[in-house]
Amino acid sequence: MTTTLLTGYEPFDDYETNPSETIANRLDGEQIAGSDVVGEVFPVEFEHTNELLCDRINELDPDIVISLGLAPERTAINIERIGINVNSGTGVPDNVGVEPENEPIEADGSDAHFATIPVTKIVRDLADGDIPSRISNTAGTHLCNNALYSVREYAIQNDLDLDSGFIHLPFSPALAIESADAYVSAGTVPPSMPLDLQTEAVRRSIAVATEER
Amino acid sequence: MTTTLLTGYEPFDDYETNPSETIANRLDGEQIAGSDVVGEVFPVEFEHTNELLCDRINELDPDIVISLGLAPERTAINIERIGINVNSGTGVPDNVGVEPENEPIEADGSDAHFATIPVTKIVRDLADGDIPSRISNTAGTHLCNNALYSVREYAIQNDLDLDSGFIHLPFSPALAIESADAYVSAGTVPPSMPLDLQTEAVRRSIAVATEER
Amino acid sequence: MTTTLLTGYEPFDDYETNPSETIANRLDGEQIAGSDVVGEVFPVEFEHTNELLCDRINELDPDIVISLGLAPERTAINIERIGINVNSGTGVPDNVGVEPENEPIEADGSDAHFATIPVTKIVRDLADGDIPSRISNTAGTHLCNNALYSVREYAIQNDLDLDSGFIHLPFSPALAIESADAYVSAGTVPPSMPLDLQTEAVRRSIAVATEER
Amino acid sequence: MTTTLLTGYEPFDDYETNPSETIANRLDGEQIAGSDVVGEVFPVEFEHTNELLCDRINELDPDIVISLGLAPERTAINIERIGINVNSGTGVPDNVGVEPENEPIEADGSDAHFATIPVTKIVRDLADGDIPSRISNTAGTHLCNNALYSVREYAIQNDLDLDSGFIHLPFSPALAIESADAYVSAGTVPPSMPLDLQTEAVRRSIAVATEER
Repeated sequence: MTTTLLTGYEPFDDYETNPSETIANRLDGEQIAGSDVVGEVFPVEFEHTNELLCDRINELDPDIVISLGLAPERTAINIERIGINVNSGTGVPDNVGVEPENEPIEADGSDAHFATIPVTKIVRDLADGDIPSRISNTAGTHLCNNALYSVREYAIQNDLDLDSGFIHLPFSPALAIESADAYVSAGTVPPSMPLDLQTEAVRRSIAVATEER
Repeated sequence: MTTTLLTGYEPFDDYETNPSETIANRLDGEQIAGSDVVGEVFPVEFEHTNELLCDRINELDPDIVISLGLAPERTAINIERIGINVNSGTGVPDNVGVEPENEPIEADGSDAHFATIPVTKIVRDLADGDIPSRISNTAGTHLCNNALYSVREYAIQNDLDLDSGFIHLPFSPALAIESADAYVSAGTVPPSMPLDLQTEAVRRSIAVATEER
Repeated sequence: MTTTLLTGYEPFDDYETNPSETIANRLDGEQIAGSDVVGEVFPVEFEHTNELLCDRINELDPDIVISLGLAPERTAINIERIGINVNSGTGVPDNVGVEPENEPIEADGSDAHFATIPVTKIVRDLADGDIPSRISNTAGTHLCNNALYSVREYAIQNDLDLDSGFIHLPFSPALAIESADAYVSAGTVPPSMPLDLQTEAVRRSIAVATEER
Repeated sequence: MTTTLLTGYEPFDDYETNPSETIANRLDGEQIAGSDVVGEVFPVEFEHTNELLCDRINELDPDIVISLGLAPERTAINIERIGINVNSGTGVPDNVGVEPENEPIEADGSDAHFATIPVTKIVRDLADGDIPSRISNTAGTHLCNNALYSVREYAIQNDLDLDSGFIHLPFSPALAIESADAYVSAGTVPPSMPLDLQTEAVRRSIAVATEER
């Protein structure tokens, strides 16, 4: 019997909702492939979120941590391969107005850490389930990348037997409509994926990560 | 009591399925907002399809014709505004190998015809239903544009009390996966929309077009 | 000996410059393939610009009118095929704050007019000159489309022996940098083309249009 | 007086030319900001190129290594931030038909290495020169990423006082036309940048890297 910590984020920027929050809440309490899922939602703050996340890992002692985040404009579920030692806001401040530019997350940390969930197996499994996904080589430099990097760094520093990874989620249809530019007049509408399909993608990802341990 | 002819196309190019075929078949026989839907699937042939389509209109005498087609890479339901008097293959031959380049559909026809279904009302209604859509100003120059143009030209030439329009559909998730480029290695995955959501979009569009007549 | 009226627009939206203005000014007074080029810059106003344009045509009696406009995000020179009878701001008001939504340009006008400059020959010629270009099937619904539609409508109504068309220009490099989103932090930079190459594209287009008359 | 090794690649995939080859050859022998540039072109082979590259570094003992590569579809000069320990062909085999899938470059190597040329200063300098550029967080997983990773790994293993980095170049206009899909019929044309502007971007990048040492 294992435990999976599934993390989401509060809404940020001008978006009214965040699929990562919705899905972390939906799957909280589910048992998936024999792993008890604990879903939790974190604030979007460069200066505190990774500490809160690591504190929670320390407390819960999970076997797997899968973090979720919203990636506007992406067309599919993105299974992130690597987190890098950079905090940079890319024009989007966090929810308390902080926007670092090209700063390290950990002053003496490694340049980057690979996710340790089986990213290739997950994208193949999602394809088998008719859910569009891909491996992504960059989680950006915002809080999402920070979570991926920080959890690996924490696991290594503390010699934890912990697998972790990050999944970037596309817009929900409602967010795509909210973000569309003049759609009644041939403007653009960003790509999206219904929340039920996104939730199923996360469920399958947890199952593959659990079965591969 | 009105009749709606809902047309789809057979698969073309290298795609194994065509959402327009699936949805025309699914909705065939449904009654939507008091309109009897007759769903039919047409071949992808520059030289015959518009004749077959006009023959069927002549036979069935529908009040509304809504034609559906696949638009690879589009991110949302596209309600087409206008059909133009051009056949051009754009690198994709039809299913019998014919590929015209910048030829007129009708030698002495008008340059273009607006769709007469209420395109603005439809995109607003789809947004109300949380289905991403937009007005599109170009249906391309392949069979899809041909259908939109040819049905309007036929209705005008024969003085028919017929409203018609065209809806371009995105990839289904299965088609997006089939068309993805190296997704297990950070390639690209085109945008998609589940067939159930696409079907609901078409159902709502027929309802709005019927109620507005 | 012929005359070509080459029109550009003042800057609009938040852009500090407009390549169409720069190029209309640069080519003003040149003789290209035996055609005297008169370059003029027009304001960006839905309610007046087409009148100003038609008045100028009435005065100058040119053989060819080629109108230029900026198309943010396009990757290449776009030779427009057709102008449609729609004014719609698509989220961008004109320079006096007017933003129509899906209104006709001419209440009883045709649905659309094809450009009468030789669009296919122009894109082939530009390719021969190593300048990326394409035929575009939509000039949008802003002032650019308005110019293409209005000049054709005016020529037809007044039975003028006038060829006309529209060329959409990409960002200059400076505009791309100005419009880039957080490029020092892996944000996006829109595509662009240097003004010298854009100018050469317009020069070649005028030459082809002149030689084909 | 310093030495800069500037590397390019032979053409690969179906592309007839490679801007990285052209520019490495053009700048070979130039002195830029007091650094002697040695331009060299390498084969596109997963199994040998990084060895050839490291052998050449061993021989030449340069102060700076800047590697160039073609990144189809990118809109601007991309200054790469990081190379990761992954070889993966992403659907494009190398020039002898080898296509690894998600394999490590160095079995026991670090997960990734940051470029040590001043990436932020370079993008700011290019913007000052009206050349569109951005920091990129992923150099992919093909030979380009391999060069960035392998040179840093080699420098660290051999304790070299060597700064190195990677610049991804967009299509030249000729390559964009060659890669365009049906541009005479409203197909798509990928973004591009003239080779002179690309060359100037590389020249400025070498100058900034040299001045910052």
